[in-house]
Amino acid sequence: MFDKEYDVIVVGGGHAGAEAAAAAANMGSKTLLVTMNLQTIGQMSCNPAMGGIAKGQIVREIDALGGYSGIVTDKSAIQFKMLNKSKGPAMWSPRAQNDRMRFAEEWRLSLEATPNVDFYQEMVSGLLIEGENVVGVRTSLGIDVRSKAVVLTNGTFLNGLIHIGEKQFGGGRAGEKAATGITEQLVDLGFDSGRMKTGTPPRVDGRSLNYDLMIPQPGDAKPEKFSYLDTPVLKVQRDCHMTHTSALVHDLLREGFDRSPMFNGRIQSLGPRYCPSIEDKINRFADKDAHQIFVEPEGWDTVEVYVNGFSTSLPEDVQFKALRSVKGFERVKFFRPGYAIEYDYFPPTQLKHTLETKLVNNLYFAGQINGTTGYEEAASQGLMAGINAHLKIKGEEPFILKRDEAYIGVLIDDLITKGTEEPYRMFTSRAEYRTLLRQDNADLRLTPKAYEIGLAKEERMKKMDLKQTKSKEFIKFFKKTSFVPEEINPILESLDSAVVKQSDKLFKVFSRPKVTMEHMLQLDSVSTFVEEHDLNSDVLEQAEIEVKYSGYIEKEKSNADKLHRLENVRIPNDFDYSKLKSLSFEAREKMESIRPVTISQASRISGVSPADISVLLVYLGR
Amino acid sequence: MFDKEYDVIVVGGGHAGAEAAAAAANMGSKTLLVTMNLQTIGQMSCNPAMGGIAKGQIVREIDALGGYSGIVTDKSAIQFKMLNKSKGPAMWSPRAQNDRMRFAEEWRLSLEATPNVDFYQEMVSGLLIEGENVVGVRTSLGIDVRSKAVVLTNGTFLNGLIHIGEKQFGGGRAGEKAATGITEQLVDLGFDSGRMKTGTPPRVDGRSLNYDLMIPQPGDAKPEKFSYLDTPVLKVQRDCHMTHTSALVHDLLREGFDRSPMFNGRIQSLGPRYCPSIEDKINRFADKDAHQIFVEPEGWDTVEVYVNGFSTSLPEDVQFKALRSVKGFERVKFFRPGYAIEYDYFPPTQLKHTLETKLVNNLYFAGQINGTTGYEEAASQGLMAGINAHLKIKGEEPFILKRDEAYIGVLIDDLITKGTEEPYRMFTSRAEYRTLLRQDNADLRLTPKAYEIGLAKEERMKKMDLKQTKSKEFIKFFKKTSFVPEEINPILESLDSAVVKQSDKLFKVFSRPKVTMEHMLQLDSVSTFVEEHDLNSDVLEQAEIEVKYSGYIEKEKSNADKLHRLENVRIPNDFDYSKLKSLSFEAREKMESIRPVTISQASRISGVSPADISVLLVYLGR
Repeated sequence: MFDKEYDVIVVGGGHAGAEAAAAAANMGSKTLLVTMNLQTIGQMSCNPAMGGIAKGQIVREIDALGGYSGIVTDKSAIQFKMLNKSKGPAMWSPRAQNDRMRFAEEWRLSLEATPNVDFYQEMVSGLLIEGENVVGVRTSLGIDVRSKAVVLTNGTFLNGLIHIGEKQFGGGRAGEKAATGITEQLVDLGFDSGRMKTGTPPRVDGRSLNYDLMIPQPGDAKPEKFSYLDTPVLKVQRDCHMTHTSALVHDLLREGFDRSPMFNGRIQSLGPRYCPSIEDKINRFADKDAHQIFVEPEGWDTVEVYVNGFSTSLPEDVQFKALRSVKGFERVKFFRPGYAIEYDYFPPTQLKHTLETKLVNNLYFAGQINGTTGYEEAASQGLMAGINAHLKIKGEEPFILKRDEAYIGVLIDDLITKGTEEPYRMFTSRAEYRTLLRQDNADLRLTPKAYEIGLAKEERMKKMDLKQTKSKEFIKFFKKTSFVPEEINPILESLDSAVVKQSDKLFKVFSRPKVTMEHMLQLDSVSTFVEEHDLNSDVLEQAEIEVKYSGYIEKEKSNADKLHRLENVRIPNDFDYSKLKSLSFEAREKMESIRPVTISQASRISGVSPADISVLLVYLGR
Repeated sequence: MFDKEYDVIVVGGGHAGAEAAAAAANMGSKTLLVTMNLQTIGQMSCNPAMGGIAKGQIVREIDALGGYSGIVTDKSAIQFKMLNKSKGPAMWSPRAQNDRMRFAEEWRLSLEATPNVDFYQEMVSGLLIEGENVVGVRTSLGIDVRSKAVVLTNGTFLNGLIHIGEKQFGGGRAGEKAATGITEQLVDLGFDSGRMKTGTPPRVDGRSLNYDLMIPQPGDAKPEKFSYLDTPVLKVQRDCHMTHTSALVHDLLREGFDRSPMFNGRIQSLGPRYCPSIEDKINRFADKDAHQIFVEPEGWDTVEVYVNGFSTSLPEDVQFKALRSVKGFERVKFFRPGYAIEYDYFPPTQLKHTLETKLVNNLYFAGQINGTTGYEEAASQGLMAGINAHLKIKGEEPFILKRDEAYIGVLIDDLITKGTEEPYRMFTSRAEYRTLLRQDNADLRLTPKAYEIGLAKEERMKKMDLKQTKSKEFIKFFKKTSFVPEEINPILESLDSAVVKQSDKLFKVFSRPKVTMEHMLQLDSVSTFVEEHDLNSDVLEQAEIEVKYSGYIEKEKSNADKLHRLENVRIPNDFDYSKLKSLSFEAREKMESIRPVTISQASRISGVSPADISVLLVYLGR
């Protein structure tokens, strides 16, 4: 059936699988994407949106590296918002609402337009293993396809079990089949597996809602976008709407608690803490008698609506009765109820930084199979797994992003070092160096690295280079150009900021908190420079952030440098922890299991104390 | 969950279900469409094309009646051809290639834009029955939804079993679940059920084909369209391509025959005779060493390709090896193999002309559940079931099309009178009055009827009216206007047609076989009339056909009138055939089972002889 050996086989066509296939193929690997249904590639299983806090930064990073998620999001967006714009730039987080059908179609067509990506529709039910290496996959029809590496991105499909009230049925998503076979084989091979849970809210008929009773949530007046390439900016946008639950709604939901799989013991596994079901919310925050609900359109034209904030696995009649008591939902009609789904995952401490498994060579895991939640988390893991699968089989150095280089680095390091027992999602607070890991500079941080390994293309590199050069020149201009007090003082006065007596460098006054680029542009010298050098808004933003936050940025850079010194103290792979009697028992056990590759990684393992690190450092001769 | 009783519940969202929901809703019924997956509404399960011989006429009829198939086809077409243009106009058959994704999306959005259509995603696993009436459906989650009528359009999903070589697995389509529960309940209620089979070819990667070795099959230079409304005409089209199997290909396929479910007894049920699998073709036509293969693109942008003519359920390795020996397919890559599918159907002699079941009141069947094959056959049944479900519950007269009024009338009369033991598809030869049932005049035939029952809207009726009035005027003009021999003779000479000596009516010379509208337009009087009356190409075509084929048309009309006389001899519903001892045993048995409503219908039952009809006529007093 398949006349050749592939370089990389990707199992699954969701966010992780699609990015993995694109990355491996774009780097030159002959890649096969195998999925149970070729018509659901790039399917948004849950809400029709990409990005958000910390997640938006990840999408920007994926784009900077040459992944597709940013481009696909831009092409299918129906609304764009920069969240947290009132906070510092480290917190700025882009988010888009998407047309669900367009998003999936863009993904499919983007992959089709990628040379080296082949497609095959079938369920993969097993891996081909020879010795300690994976050498391909076996489909449920018994077809063997050989490859040098395999990336598993099975999402919620592995032994997927859907719960609604007291009813349960097998399925990878509502209306779709579950996948079987892989978990059993991996467990036989020595992998630990576990169960996780996630959920989704009802989808409803927008024609049955009374939007007059809700608060419109429009997109930004000046929408931006995700990709650093020339994707379109939205000219028209669709509004979302906000409404709230109430004490009555909560009471109605509570009436179903005894029939809830969450509370009657049917679902044992943990769900995403930061994306809880509505029953979880009213249970955990019993004192709150209202929760927000965001009413999100599913696309440009469809009347289908996603009820964000109302994820639930309560019996459908309870869901219905309660939702009908929400303001604006008095006459709501369901397209389908919300549900919970349990699925198999593999604790990610069984992985290396490359997302290759420790037990089986050339086998990579990405996405929900690693215990994460979120499209962005999945997509970024897929990208990294695709890259590293390619590099490994070509005999090249692995591509690992450090914690001060990317949220993606934080994500993977957290997963493989700390593991997770509940669906892991990214937050800005997980990143020690979030002032460095901004959405505006993902290209500066990552495009050169991606270019070096052959993933980011010339065009992307040139754009990044131009932006960097121009913003550096502009910053230099602020550092060397002086202002005249008469020119700047009216501006400072209008800002209620102390006037200046004598001339000084522009940089100094620009550093003041209230002074923005907009004020600077009122100065002839600045506006002339901008015009003469043809600086676009990206360059202006970049320069502004780097001038105004230079203090914080420098401080974090120096902290990161300290980290690097620890990073550079490598622990041999076959290090014998049992020799170090002064290590705590817990530290020895955890390190034996996780096998950190550096002192720095060891320090992040929960249960490893600074004292343990000192022991290690002494032993390793530092 | 559902706070009200619906008028009509439609189960299934394929061609039949979508038309049924649209029709019932547009006539004013509160309608619920329940489907296992709301993202696969209007899915083209097999080839990405609509229309073709006799089927194209059906789509035109659906459109004339106010159905959506023609509009959806026009909006998603990528190529258009009028087949049989070299034959008489009764044979002209429109056919379009479609973008598979666009087609489904257009259907979904069209239904969403239809007031009165609600949606619900879930598997229906049973009917609610009270006495002899259906009163709703029960979903697999146990939700009861009440309604006054139910239309079942389950397609290939009822206990669907997919076969590839020696492997079998449950499924309604590749990658989708089967539906269960309904057959068992209907059998308990006394329905006969059977199994049918259909199949589909492999889908392949267009990038792996060598089109230089194939024959391009472009669309018409002047593409037309399906809908009588103002849908777009294609400005750009995509080519299909043709290639052939060979003796070698056939030999390679034969090697798999012992593993074929068709030949090793695993599939017992009958498949569509006129859409046979490739193994069927080489088996039945052993002397032919080449069969045509049409290579059809799946859309505007996708690389996926449909291999029309190569439907197969042979083992996937056999499919692959054989297809690789087809010219242009030497390096073909599969997206997925072909497969056969077996599913439950209910012999349609259990239905009335309205498609209501005889056993359960207000329960309607449409599409493959009735043993038909083809999108167009399914869609037209859905439309008629939707119309009649609405009329029944509103206490109005049923809407039945006669055999001389529409292919749809022929289709339904054939089904309920003759039944079918293999998937039934429409042909022009099935229609006794095909000169009347042309694609050009479906609007004239059917729009007034649909307008009368409130389905066709004002706009459609006005368009039809204008076309009819103008073409009648134009024909009248030909009948009353005379030509001058000096003007007409050069044209006749150029056509090698006898010149005329004296003036006569235009109608007379226009009736000559070689003379076309194009020639007529060379006459000043004609072109002036066309200009002054602003006649468009539809009117010109209509007038031309009615002038040139007036003889045939009149003859068929008079034959049809004779039929009507028999049609008017109704047989009482409780007629006691056992009293008529002179009826043949077979005739008595068949008529007792089918219970024809007229002598005419009785005459079409297989096994009922002209002698039996005479007996009946005598008894009924004629």
